[in-house]
Amino acid sequence: MSFSNIMDSNSYSPDHPVDPVTGSMIAARARMLGPAYRLFYDQPVNLVRGEGTRLYDIDGACFLDAYNNVACVGHCHPHVVEAASRQLATLNTHTRYLHRGIIDYSERLLATLPDKVDQVMYACTGSEVNDLALRVAAMHTGATGVVITRDAYHGNTATTTAISPSIGGATIAGPHVRIVAPPDSYRIPADELANRFTADVSAAIADLQSAGFGMSALIVDTIFSSDGIYPDPLVLAPAVAAVHRAGGMFIADEVQPGFARTGEAMWGFSRHGVLPDIVTMGKPMGNGLPIAAMAAQAGVLEAFANDIPYFNTFGGNPVTMAAAAAVLDVIEDDGLLDNAASVGGLLRAELTGMTEDHPRIGEVRGAGLYIGVEVVTESGAPDRTGAKSLVNAMRERRVLISVCGHDGSVLKIRPPLVFSRSDVDWFCTEFAAALASSF
Amino acid sequence: MSFSNIMDSNSYSPDHPVDPVTGSMIAARARMLGPAYRLFYDQPVNLVRGEGTRLYDIDGACFLDAYNNVACVGHCHPHVVEAASRQLATLNTHTRYLHRGIIDYSERLLATLPDKVDQVMYACTGSEVNDLALRVAAMHTGATGVVITRDAYHGNTATTTAISPSIGGATIAGPHVRIVAPPDSYRIPADELANRFTADVSAAIADLQSAGFGMSALIVDTIFSSDGIYPDPLVLAPAVAAVHRAGGMFIADEVQPGFARTGEAMWGFSRHGVLPDIVTMGKPMGNGLPIAAMAAQAGVLEAFANDIPYFNTFGGNPVTMAAAAAVLDVIEDDGLLDNAASVGGLLRAELTGMTEDHPRIGEVRGAGLYIGVEVVTESGAPDRTGAKSLVNAMRERRVLISVCGHDGSVLKIRPPLVFSRSDVDWFCTEFAAALASSF
Repeated sequence: MSFSNIMDSNSYSPDHPVDPVTGSMIAARARMLGPAYRLFYDQPVNLVRGEGTRLYDIDGACFLDAYNNVACVGHCHPHVVEAASRQLATLNTHTRYLHRGIIDYSERLLATLPDKVDQVMYACTGSEVNDLALRVAAMHTGATGVVITRDAYHGNTATTTAISPSIGGATIAGPHVRIVAPPDSYRIPADELANRFTADVSAAIADLQSAGFGMSALIVDTIFSSDGIYPDPLVLAPAVAAVHRAGGMFIADEVQPGFARTGEAMWGFSRHGVLPDIVTMGKPMGNGLPIAAMAAQAGVLEAFANDIPYFNTFGGNPVTMAAAAAVLDVIEDDGLLDNAASVGGLLRAELTGMTEDHPRIGEVRGAGLYIGVEVVTESGAPDRTGAKSLVNAMRERRVLISVCGHDGSVLKIRPPLVFSRSDVDWFCTEFAAALASSF
Repeated sequence: MSFSNIMDSNSYSPDHPVDPVTGSMIAARARMLGPAYRLFYDQPVNLVRGEGTRLYDIDGACFLDAYNNVACVGHCHPHVVEAASRQLATLNTHTRYLHRGIIDYSERLLATLPDKVDQVMYACTGSEVNDLALRVAAMHTGATGVVITRDAYHGNTATTTAISPSIGGATIAGPHVRIVAPPDSYRIPADELANRFTADVSAAIADLQSAGFGMSALIVDTIFSSDGIYPDPLVLAPAVAAVHRAGGMFIADEVQPGFARTGEAMWGFSRHGVLPDIVTMGKPMGNGLPIAAMAAQAGVLEAFANDIPYFNTFGGNPVTMAAAAAVLDVIEDDGLLDNAASVGGLLRAELTGMTEDHPRIGEVRGAGLYIGVEVVTESGAPDRTGAKSLVNAMRERRVLISVCGHDGSVLKIRPPLVFSRSDVDWFCTEFAAALASSF
């Protein structure tokens, strides 16, 4: 098998020598889980414990986690553990019975969203809610055409795989899908970003209309995670206006940027000054328990929800609602939005200062605690090999990051939101050493 | 809005008077969750605590749970609660890092399956794994045609909705889907069940082939849950042979019958003497935590898994694996397969004895703790209204069941596997009273 896609840029290759314990676990996975599974790093990590921004492997070695957004309030946060464990021991059923958990959480969640985004449905994964969002948009618009970015990732169901070219391999965008370039702030002048993106989206809409699919939805991750992390604000507004003029829906995929990650707002779309018709969210929502949600304007949801009963066995159950409520508690009580802004700003500033004159680091960019570092060749081209070397050098120094972007050449730095100033120091010390050893 | 489908047979209608607390919770759900959500019963239940086969409402009233298969080892089983809580407090990451949990559980799970079904992949919901199974079958066969039963339910993603006519509403089977009648043991003589089913499947295969879709897969819930619970064994074998002759795959959807439910075997397909190419499982797997799996023969999985990386953020994570392992512990240690057989047999025998001469009960059938009771009119036709009355009479008597089948006329009795002999007495006492009050 061979892939040349983003997902595999940081994958372990079977030809890489590892210690016997690691080797036997890799062999057991290959035998029982088959060839679709991937491990990170040339030397996969064998983790047994987590706490805050720290992860510990089987030998007791301590890693700094600068990658995992799912554990947004920190690994094994006691408030979340306690809330979920207590509910697990009390009751865990489904939404065909009444329960306060889903009602109370929905009040709180909807209060973080624009007033017009006033209804919410629950599922277990980002894939499920993006799949649902596409159906809701199609029912509302009577159209099926979808516009996505070049290296989008929106899920692993059949329907969301068709809008996720970043998966690579044999994955092919569906005939109803049009692909536009992301707002690549490294290669496109800032004052042209919005115009180019809008022009591309408008052309895609026209093409979908003339092909008979019609315009159903523009769906984007509002910080363009898999495309390479493009944080420039306000870029989306004119494109969304064009989508609305064509009768289409704007689906803000907040699975990665949502829940305070960007430091400037609870939701990534807010930074763009746009009002989504549908908002999807997942990964960090329950700090690791499987929970996801699709929020929508009631008028947009109506055609779908009136015609099709929807039941998700585990979606919105008391345990995941308790975990999700505890996550909101910590985000609010510990000021994690502000922390993402200030600590993320510090980390970007330190990395920028450290790499300003480095010929192989093209740019450090990001918002809050979502940071991309553009690794380039001496001639300025995307450097997949260099990025991979840096990621593995960081792993050897016990700091976990990964890569993203079309060429797998952008370092993806996306730590738990409780990342501290001393974590920044730790990260930067190791990054300086990794940089020195990699080029 | 109006539906005439199975899912809505036991749904609360907004015109039904309820107490003020219930009313305010219903109103809050309608306002925030929108019109796609449903509640069970004319008087919805407001549950706050569960233990074993008991559920308690906000007023402290105790209900006997004869419906919830998800809490298969009993609500809030301490061993499962403890295992999941301990892992929640220790580590919860994803499968791109090594972890013993997924390896150890996979060994145990695969040991319960036929030797040839030797690989497994993890997701969070039955919908996700059925969606994946269809893609795996399509990649292996190079065909897209799918054969399902008349009132099948296989999930809520776009792709699985297209093979789930029981959802009703505007749900329509896809053009690549052919529908066959389930082996209705109440209306078809026992010695004709397999022949008729096989003839229908063979005709569907021929039709898919001539329409150019080709034969990808026959997918059935191996106890035909939403079709009306048809437990006759060995019915599937000749149909599966026909599928294999046509180059198609047999997908055993074990989301409902799996994990010892039928009392005769860990998996429903075993009762039919067939070897599936793909097996999907979910609901009871983690006793309420979102976890699901697709097991497959390595040769069947190969084409998909070699070409398409698959990553599911929460699938196979340490917490859900710990819960799933604890569920297997309890099934094994407490002999729940035997319990399902013996207590299920007792319950069927008691219900049969009680209703033998009742003009409105056509049949009591089932396997293990999956029991269907056919409610009929005096002329023997399916009696949706009668079934609904019985379900609500049982709810008033604090015993929870629901309905299934094409006409919503089959009582669905599917309690936690820890249902005891005294639970059977309790159930039958209330059933006799409900029967007397309903007709």
